[in-house]
Parts: sequence; C-alpha cells; structure tokens
Amino acid sequence: MRNLRVTASFCGAAYHGFQRQSGICAVQNVIEDTLSQILKQKTVIYGCSRTDAGVHANEFVFSFRTECAVPCRGLIRGMNSLLPDDIAILACEDVPQDFHARYSCKGKEYKYLIHNAEIKDPFLYKRAYHYPYRTDAELMDRAARLIKGTHDFSAFCGSSGLKDDNVRTVTDIGVERSGDMVVLTVSADGFLYNMVRIICGTLIFVNEGRLSCDDVERIIRSCNRDLAGPTAPPDGLYLNKVFY
Amino acid sequence: MRNLRVTASFCGAAYHGFQRQSGICAVQNVIEDTLSQILKQKTVIYGCSRTDAGVHANEFVFSFRTECAVPCRGLIRGMNSLLPDDIAILACEDVPQDFHARYSCKGKEYKYLIHNAEIKDPFLYKRAYHYPYRTDAELMDRAARLIKGTHDFSAFCGSSGLKDDNVRTVTDIGVERSGDMVVLTVSADGFLYNMVRIICGTLIFVNEGRLSCDDVERIIRSCNRDLAGPTAPPDGLYLNKVFY
Repeated sequence: MRNLRVTASFCGAAYHGFQRQSGICAVQNVIEDTLSQILKQKTVIYGCSRTDAGVHANEFVFSFRTECAVPCRGLIRGMNSLLPDDIAILACEDVPQDFHARYSCKGKEYKYLIHNAEIKDPFLYKRAYHYPYRTDAELMDRAARLIKGTHDFSAFCGSSGLKDDNVRTVTDIGVERSGDMVVLTVSADGFLYNMVRIICGTLIFVNEGRLSCDDVERIIRSCNRDLAGPTAPPDGLYLNKVFY
Repeated sequence: MRNLRVTASFCGAAYHGFQRQSGICAVQNVIEDTLSQILKQKTVIYGCSRTDAGVHANEFVFSFRTECAVPCRGLIRGMNSLLPDDIAILACEDVPQDFHARYSCKGKEYKYLIHNAEIKDPFLYKRAYHYPYRTDAELMDRAARLIKGTHDFSAFCGSSGLKDDNVRTVTDIGVERSGDMVVLTVSADGFLYNMVRIICGTLIFVNEGRLSCDDVERIIRSCNRDLAGPTAPPDGLYLNKVFY
C-alpha cells in the first residue's frame, strides 16, 4: 500500500470550503471524485486542515493511500487534466506510512489580503477584502506583533470552535503594505476556528482607532471573543504554507 | 441635458459580453439597471465597443445623457455601491454634447494574457489563457510586428464579422514576456470581430512552427480567414485603453 502526499492550490471562491459535505460543493468532494476516477476505486483523502467557504489556498497538503502503481508524475498530470481550472495539483510524492496530512502537520502560515484602494478592483472580486478607508499598515503591524507567542486564543475563536485546549503558539505575525495591498501574515503551530479572520478584524479596529494596542493585549488575556474585533470576510484569506 | 463620459473596468468572466441582450446577463444590462435606479428614469448607455462573452476590460468607456443634476463624484460613488463587485466605475465627467463613446473613439488598445507555465494557476481561472508549452516570446514578437500597418484584415476576422470595409491600421503591436506571463499588446484605429483573438491564435501557431513569419505576411495578403490560426479563447483578452 502506497502513502502519497499531494500539494494542491485552489481558488475557494466557488467552494464551500475544503471539507467534504454531502450535497454541497467542497474541494474535497471534487478531488476525491477525480482521484476515484483515475484510480478506478473509491478514494478518501485527508486534508491538512478544514477551510471555510470562500477561503483560498496557495499551498494545501492532503494525503491518501492507494494500491495503484501509477507514478507520481502521471497522477499529477491526470489530476490536473480532470480537475476544474480553479484547483491545481502542484506536487505529489510517496511518503513513509506514518505520514498523515493533518496529524503530521507541525504548523501553517496564512496570509490575509486587504485591498486598500478607494475603488474596488473587479479582478480581485472574491480574491481579497476591499477596504477603502485610510490604513496605517505600520500601526496594524505593531498591534499584530503583540499577538506573537504562546497564549490561550479563546478571544480569537469563532463561537462554535472552542475546544478543551485553546492554547496555540503564534511563531510569526506581521502586516506589510505592498502598493494597494495590505497583507497580514500569521504562522502558528495550530489555529482555532476563524482565528486569522478575527485577528484581521481586530487589527482593522485598531486601524480605525476603535481599539488600542493596549486593548489587544487585554483582549488576549480576557479570553473573551466579544471584546475582539469582527470576523473579517473569507475572500481575503489564503492558506499559504504547511509545515511538516 | 448633460452628456456624461464614464470609464469602467470589469471582469467579464460572468458576463455574455458588454452589449445588451434580452434574457442574457450582459454588462450593459447591469450598468443600465443600476443607472436607471440611481437616476430614477430608464437610462440607455452607449459603449465604446462590443466585447465577446468572457472578455475583460481594464478601461471601458461609455456615454449617456441625463437631466439629472447629481455631481459626477456622487454618480461614481452611487454606481460603485450598487454595481456587483466585478464591475467598477473609475471615472465620470461631463463632456461636450457631440461626444459619443463609440463614434468619437479614435482607437483602442487590447492586451492578451497567455499564462505560460506547466501547471495552471487556479487564481488565473477565466483571467488568462493557460498555455503550458514552450513559448518563444521573441519569435512571436517578430511575427507580430509584421501585422503592424494598414491592411485589409479580412483574414483575421471571425466569419460573421466581415463588413464592406475591412481595412484597419494597427498602430502598435508586440509580444513581451513578464515571468510566466506572455502578453500580446495591439493598438489599432479599429478592430474587426475576433481580430485580436485570431492574431493571438496565429502567433501561437508561429510559436509551434506550424506557420512561419513569411506565412503571416502571406495570410494578411490572402484575406482568407482559413489560412490564419485558430481563435484564441476569450479568457485572456482585455480591452486596455480607449483613445479619443
């Protein structure tokens, strides 16, 4: 039995997230249907994480097992020719039996794209969050850096997502401007439900003067979701790297 | 009666072209419905050109007349807040009564984007033509430059588009590579139906060695559509500038 690790990229605009759901168009359903067709047997894949509806991935890893002998190059080619054009397979390799895309994952990096221009860009529709107001990326960056470190992130977790253990380590975080685009980058050993989107909404509140840098530290300590900013829309969120 | 000139930008992926058609979603219908709502009276707009289904515009000019006194800035804001996010209004100004977006137009520039990489980019889906084969942009550029000048362009006109006069002047044309993107730029005083897409298909045939640079000159002289290359797909085509 082979164990395969696959790296994909997808534009999430048309999908209800990665995770398979019956009666709904999810990335996992589409990839499993394609793989089952190529391998001529029902195939189940394991993704490195769930993603919300409309969220994108520059790099998304999944793994699956198969008896099939088709070389990796052929699998890449076959999947890319059968998958819809908003999902691409970037790499595929045989890995040791104990590899699992989700359980072997040591961390992930997300990017959140804020298109900061007075007028929306039609070509960024569903690919970035359009925010037309004056934005101080340096202020947002200072506030973001306060989030770095090991904390209980309950204040940055969507209501239905709380677990027994909500402590995570944010290994790197920052906000940078590149032209009209303000980009939040967050790496962590794990993420709670909606964590990046709530961090982004909180930093936007800091930009607007509704919250201060001191407030950000206080919000983390409070473990109270109600004190943080709103959940930014999914359109700007990209899973950017997966670490093993 | 005011005469207004408006510059828009749109991603054509979801539309059956600019031109109004009953029962079909065209950019013109959407803009006219929005303007009629703002101006509280049925409003007809005149576009600088038709565009095919799926074709995009970085800059598209239309004009319309109205008795309404709302200042241009308010019209821009109103339209941008009501239009779907794949259509943006970039500018609006009062112009002399004799201005007409189509009849006053002195020329246009189109760009055609060829995404030249082995693996498709999910974020370029419907925004560029994915062409995975080895591409010699310099050869395509040499062939393209032979098209410059005043010619009868019947050989580069889609079957249903021939008119009494098929002579046009291509004022500038070239092919340039920028990373994975090979970009064809064509400026002319006017374009026949599918002209840029057939020029692009012909240059791709030159790239593949199916046609030579000599053939390109021969094809122009022949006025025979059957000798030119195929019509490249609409996804890569952008109306880029309109000259008055």
